[in-house]
Amino acid sequence: MKLIFKKSDLTESINIVMKAISNKPAMPIMECILIDATEGIIKFSSNDMELAIETIVNGDIVEPGRVAIDAKVFSDIIRKLPGDEVTLLMDNDSKVIIESNQAKFNILTKDAEDFSPLPSIERDKMISISQYTLKEMINQTIFAIDDSEKGKMLNGERFEIKGDKIKVVALDKFRIAIRSVEINEEYEDFTVVIPGKALNEISKILTGEMDSLVNIYFSNNYVLFEFDDTLVLSRLIDNASLFDTDKMLSNDYNTKMNINRKELMNCIDRATLLNKEGENKPVLLTIKEDQLELSINTVLGTMNEVIPIVREGREQMVAFNPKFLIDILRVLEDETVSLYFTNSKAPCFIRNEDNSYIYIVLPVILMEDVDYGNNN
Amino acid sequence: MKLIFKKSDLTESINIVMKAISNKPAMPIMECILIDATEGIIKFSSNDMELAIETIVNGDIVEPGRVAIDAKVFSDIIRKLPGDEVTLLMDNDSKVIIESNQAKFNILTKDAEDFSPLPSIERDKMISISQYTLKEMINQTIFAIDDSEKGKMLNGERFEIKGDKIKVVALDKFRIAIRSVEINEEYEDFTVVIPGKALNEISKILTGEMDSLVNIYFSNNYVLFEFDDTLVLSRLIDNASLFDTDKMLSNDYNTKMNINRKELMNCIDRATLLNKEGENKPVLLTIKEDQLELSINTVLGTMNEVIPIVREGREQMVAFNPKFLIDILRVLEDETVSLYFTNSKAPCFIRNEDNSYIYIVLPVILMEDVDYGNNN
Repeated sequence: MKLIFKKSDLTESINIVMKAISNKPAMPIMECILIDATEGIIKFSSNDMELAIETIVNGDIVEPGRVAIDAKVFSDIIRKLPGDEVTLLMDNDSKVIIESNQAKFNILTKDAEDFSPLPSIERDKMISISQYTLKEMINQTIFAIDDSEKGKMLNGERFEIKGDKIKVVALDKFRIAIRSVEINEEYEDFTVVIPGKALNEISKILTGEMDSLVNIYFSNNYVLFEFDDTLVLSRLIDNASLFDTDKMLSNDYNTKMNINRKELMNCIDRATLLNKEGENKPVLLTIKEDQLELSINTVLGTMNEVIPIVREGREQMVAFNPKFLIDILRVLEDETVSLYFTNSKAPCFIRNEDNSYIYIVLPVILMEDVDYGNNN
Repeated sequence: MKLIFKKSDLTESINIVMKAISNKPAMPIMECILIDATEGIIKFSSNDMELAIETIVNGDIVEPGRVAIDAKVFSDIIRKLPGDEVTLLMDNDSKVIIESNQAKFNILTKDAEDFSPLPSIERDKMISISQYTLKEMINQTIFAIDDSEKGKMLNGERFEIKGDKIKVVALDKFRIAIRSVEINEEYEDFTVVIPGKALNEISKILTGEMDSLVNIYFSNNYVLFEFDDTLVLSRLIDNASLFDTDKMLSNDYNTKMNINRKELMNCIDRATLLNKEGENKPVLLTIKEDQLELSINTVLGTMNEVIPIVREGREQMVAFNPKFLIDILRVLEDETVSLYFTNSKAPCFIRNEDNSYIYIVLPVILMEDVDYGNNN
């Protein structure tokens, strides 16, 4: 085997396939990238059995061949090579030579035959969506995935395709994130749950360009993302029914508050400074005529701050885990956000007019006699 | 107490005194900054009993007073305040109010009387040196301090003043770093050992300006650095004699190699990629007619690379702990450096013509039969 690359092409492709290299691989071969130049093109693959990635790499095939090489070592070496051009050579079965300018590495390899290739799946159902939209949908919902040990069954996002609409739902025991988008074509209705790990890695690989498309293929057990020169395959999770959130949605409310998103976010951020590591005291929101009074009371002291708002409906006092509010406020881009409250024990809704995003957060139920330090 | 600050002045001064707040304080009061506005100026102090810092802060004293406040909490809050102006208020003995725009924090304080002020020392011996020079002298030597448990006795740098010269020496069991500088005036001869921790923190506080001076005062047990609006006090270490390195210096050599500093540094950096975490295989330097061949051989594989050099004297093969060479090459600024060798078991010298820096590194003694992979 002899392959010649531009270093920048190599690093870009390595960064993509590294996303399916786990830190704790079940088998040594899962630490490896498979370099395959036996079919006229150069393909890099990685596969940790939950996620598998394949990408086509620019480069010259002087002599075809294939080899499996430790991903971390390969990545580190390529990044620090002195020249702009890199040659990969294999002289016998167990070593690959990496050359660039005057530097020459001789690296032990693994048997390429041990590498599990991407399973080929039926490409019967598919949708097309822009990279920008997919990346945004993932980023605006994925924080709500339950990543606790007990929540593993739920550890994914529900993708629901209905006509020309796609709806993404993520939830844990305390909150729900829903993001809806219209797509250009009508598709057959179906619903799947995609593991959070896969979505997380895909959102990192996606360039996020508005006019570059991702084709997403669904089989019974797998989802395949196809974009640029890359394929990402993930198993599906079999519990779509657990995500049935329609009955939790409601348009009723007693109080609607419009508030500057960044002001609210920065204010909650400041309040949480008083939560020492591991502590998780709630922030209390007191919604008055034309202002929100936000306060917190911890072992370190108290904090309160006032932010102007536009209010509809009645006054309200509700307490929240500050992290849950910040997670939402951070991923939105609107200058002003609307929060809807019913009472101090009912879920709070954060949503826009056309419901393209809906967030539901459970409040913290307070003891009546807690002093929130907001009376000084 | 009522004090008014510009936020930027506050953060700058907090950053300075934070350097003497230890992560594992022996007493709770050592976690605190003392804010003292009882003498017509505002002073912030910190003291972890090894290092003590005092700095004057710009601000308005509306009502004098003093208070001890948790440094970490104070620092975090100030950094995230919404406004450019900050008011500190004390209404009773145990709480301080921090106000900025609409945000109001109410923070528990500690008893200011528990705070240990900086001891006042005899200012009998002193030198003046530019911030730039002091910062450079520290940074170019401090990495060689022995920070192992057993090396604690040596955990400092020897400052030797002789006439108009100051010489700084740091060493551990494998290497010595010596930096000499001429100062403008003649001083009385004396020698002290300053703890590495103090020097490390001081080099971070120093702005490093060429024409801004540091006055350094020496008493029997303390050293006091005075610069800008800041005092830094440290205990001295009582073992100057352990640093007597003059007998190790030698101008004899069999081989002198001039080499591009960055090329050598980057090459060693690449070679160490093959040392997995925890592993510490040496790099082998083979000095030929007009080139250096550098190689390494580890469980992951081998690497070798060739760099052009200018050589005087005979051929040479010497092995080194790569970290020891990189530590030195990283802090120098010369384009070309000179390395002097006697044989494969004798110390290597890296020094410039006027000996303003001298580094001595012990080689790694190799078994005769080790294959360094440099014969392919």
